[in-house]
Amino acid sequence: MTGERSAFQDLYPDDVAHCYGCGRLNERGHQLRSFWEGDETVAHFTPKPWHTAIPGYVYGGLIASLVDCHGTGTAAAVGARTAGWRLGEEAPPEGDEGPRYVTASLEVRYLKPTPLGPELIVRGVVEDAGEERGSRKVVTRVTVEVDGVVTAEGRVVAVRMPESFGGG
Amino acid sequence: MTGERSAFQDLYPDDVAHCYGCGRLNERGHQLRSFWEGDETVAHFTPKPWHTAIPGYVYGGLIASLVDCHGTGTAAAVGARTAGWRLGEEAPPEGDEGPRYVTASLEVRYLKPTPLGPELIVRGVVEDAGEERGSRKVVTRVTVEVDGVVTAEGRVVAVRMPESFGGG
Repeated sequence: MTGERSAFQDLYPDDVAHCYGCGRLNERGHQLRSFWEGDETVAHFTPKPWHTAIPGYVYGGLIASLVDCHGTGTAAAVGARTAGWRLGEEAPPEGDEGPRYVTASLEVRYLKPTPLGPELIVRGVVEDAGEERGSRKVVTRVTVEVDGVVTAEGRVVAVRMPESFGGG
Repeated sequence: MTGERSAFQDLYPDDVAHCYGCGRLNERGHQLRSFWEGDETVAHFTPKPWHTAIPGYVYGGLIASLVDCHGTGTAAAVGARTAGWRLGEEAPPEGDEGPRYVTASLEVRYLKPTPLGPELIVRGVVEDAGEERGSRKVVTRVTVEVDGVVTAEGRVVAVRMPESFGGG
């Protein structure tokens, strides 16, 4: 990694890169890609025409999916940051793939209808980086905006995955 | 409708039947179908192999989508019930298509990993039927179970759609 930024999800090990929301190896999935942007995280996503709720508006379940994957992606990046490196911007310490997280809970509030067509910008800020000793939890607040207007906001509680969960 | 049960979503007017989660007219969507079962509601759904999170487990965003669409479907059925008829089991009163609902907020707690493969059973119970005068809100609690084990539980706040939203 020499100056090139990578998406967090591009650096997940192959065995956790099949997620329907963000796995680079899931050809039928959404392949969401999240990046650091200062202390926040950001992802850009353009829904397909069939990701509709009522015609002309984005499906709420897709928005929930973007919130979910951006939240767990942010958790992975925060876990690495706590260990001292910037996921997607720096090479990991030798032998360290970075922690993996799964979603414990997800909340989404739909503030207004999200028009279908334009690119969505998904932003994450860290509410709880889980730096307390023994913590396995990272909490992220996520917004979805279109043309400068926030149309949905969510909160993701992610917990560090047990080593036995992911196989690998 | 003579004794045949229909899914709630099969009776949505065409202009709101394109939802990626439950629209019968969305060929690329999940086409979730929800029914009354006594005072509760139920839907059965078998995820596709690509609806994966970590290999072997169902993607949380799909589970959120099922919770969302079963919640709003249940809201539509509850709205009709409040007006005096059973959506999917009785013909509506002349000229009444039934109320339509959109999601105001969605919460999902992932209690344990949901194995990918078996059919999921999605159940809804009504927390607030919105029968108070002037209420536009129906609140539903939804569970997702597989092989008799509840793996996720959610709560959907649905609000009655303004007439101007859905076009039609």
